[in-house]
Amino acid sequence: MKIDIITVVPELLSSPFSHSILKRATEKNLLSINIINLRDYTTYARAQVDDYPFGGGAGMVLMPEPLVNAIESLKKLTEYDEVIYLTPDGKSFNQQMANRLSLKNNLLLICGHYKGIDQRVRDHFITTEISIGDYVLSGGELAAAVLTDAIGRLIPGVLNDESSALSDSFQDQLLAPPVYTRPEVFRAWSVPPVLMSGNHQLIEEWRYEESVKRTKERRPDLLQ
Amino acid sequence: MKIDIITVVPELLSSPFSHSILKRATEKNLLSINIINLRDYTTYARAQVDDYPFGGGAGMVLMPEPLVNAIESLKKLTEYDEVIYLTPDGKSFNQQMANRLSLKNNLLLICGHYKGIDQRVRDHFITTEISIGDYVLSGGELAAAVLTDAIGRLIPGVLNDESSALSDSFQDQLLAPPVYTRPEVFRAWSVPPVLMSGNHQLIEEWRYEESVKRTKERRPDLLQ
Repeated sequence: MKIDIITVVPELLSSPFSHSILKRATEKNLLSINIINLRDYTTYARAQVDDYPFGGGAGMVLMPEPLVNAIESLKKLTEYDEVIYLTPDGKSFNQQMANRLSLKNNLLLICGHYKGIDQRVRDHFITTEISIGDYVLSGGELAAAVLTDAIGRLIPGVLNDESSALSDSFQDQLLAPPVYTRPEVFRAWSVPPVLMSGNHQLIEEWRYEESVKRTKERRPDLLQ
Repeated sequence: MKIDIITVVPELLSSPFSHSILKRATEKNLLSINIINLRDYTTYARAQVDDYPFGGGAGMVLMPEPLVNAIESLKKLTEYDEVIYLTPDGKSFNQQMANRLSLKNNLLLICGHYKGIDQRVRDHFITTEISIGDYVLSGGELAAAVLTDAIGRLIPGVLNDESSALSDSFQDQLLAPPVYTRPEVFRAWSVPPVLMSGNHQLIEEWRYEESVKRTKERRPDLLQ
């Protein structure tokens, strides 16, 4: 899978993709992540890419010309399954979307900054608008990193043990059960005895019951 | 405000805080972000901090001892308003939580990795569990970065124009209206004439109507 990311702050994305699971995914050639500097596609003086919003108001808006230059240049090289704009008013990202997007070949992600991008680009060049949550960030870069991480770890072969992702929260509309590791007794607190029983059927039953209990308590909406 | 972040992959967080708005916030001494390496607090051989889950299954779990060592050492130096664990089964982060947390003095954020942290740490040392969305990431680091960005930009003085954050999506349970910038005509597409009218009252009315329309279409749940 290839994920291309257009941003006005490419340096911001230098570390999240060079460590841990996404690093492993790129080393294994399962995932290729390319950070594209929007300023390389502007024809304005001093590499300008944003300007004040028409009609007044605070914040800056990314101009249509550099962004469309970038999108059209990249599309000449790659056939994208989706051109995604990360925006708080997009469709709420969830695990089902992550599963679905992890099956695509090529994604182009567009990061807004400050007030976002010119609406005409959204109307005519974006195929999907995605929000990672009901809050506002200073730009789309961290949202693009979150999306890439959530999708990237689902690509077969990226996680060492492929069954790991299947037992995650949300994969079956249930939250994950509690987990415990060494030592068996930490200060005054012991691990639930069933986990030390060696009885795998009992352990699976306990985990399922704990998942259901936790989901009922914390996220009853997932059970509806 | 001070935000301390405990992680097992400190390098992953090197770039998101050194650019753009969070960089400005730290340069202005409005925000201090400290990345703490969990491995500095382990007494196990080879800086081990995680182990297999009791009861079997895929994935690794962060052990209680190094994590509690780190939390207790940091608490000796700082009185935290909240000790926050980033986890997909936590309370869903939103703009109201961001507003509330931006008024705090000191936050301690704990990043899980792989399957998460030992449940006993969650039961006895965490004051708030927060999820940035209904999806699973390879670790809590990007979630901590998202939380820090969403909170950090709300600290008074961080954004150049303080009115900017007030017109964001979610601040009034409405999505933001469309934005446009130069040129007035891009290819075949013109900016809505009202935005060029110079009539501020008309512009504000149009923006409000567009916000309501967009919210009804995309996120009717916000209006309930």
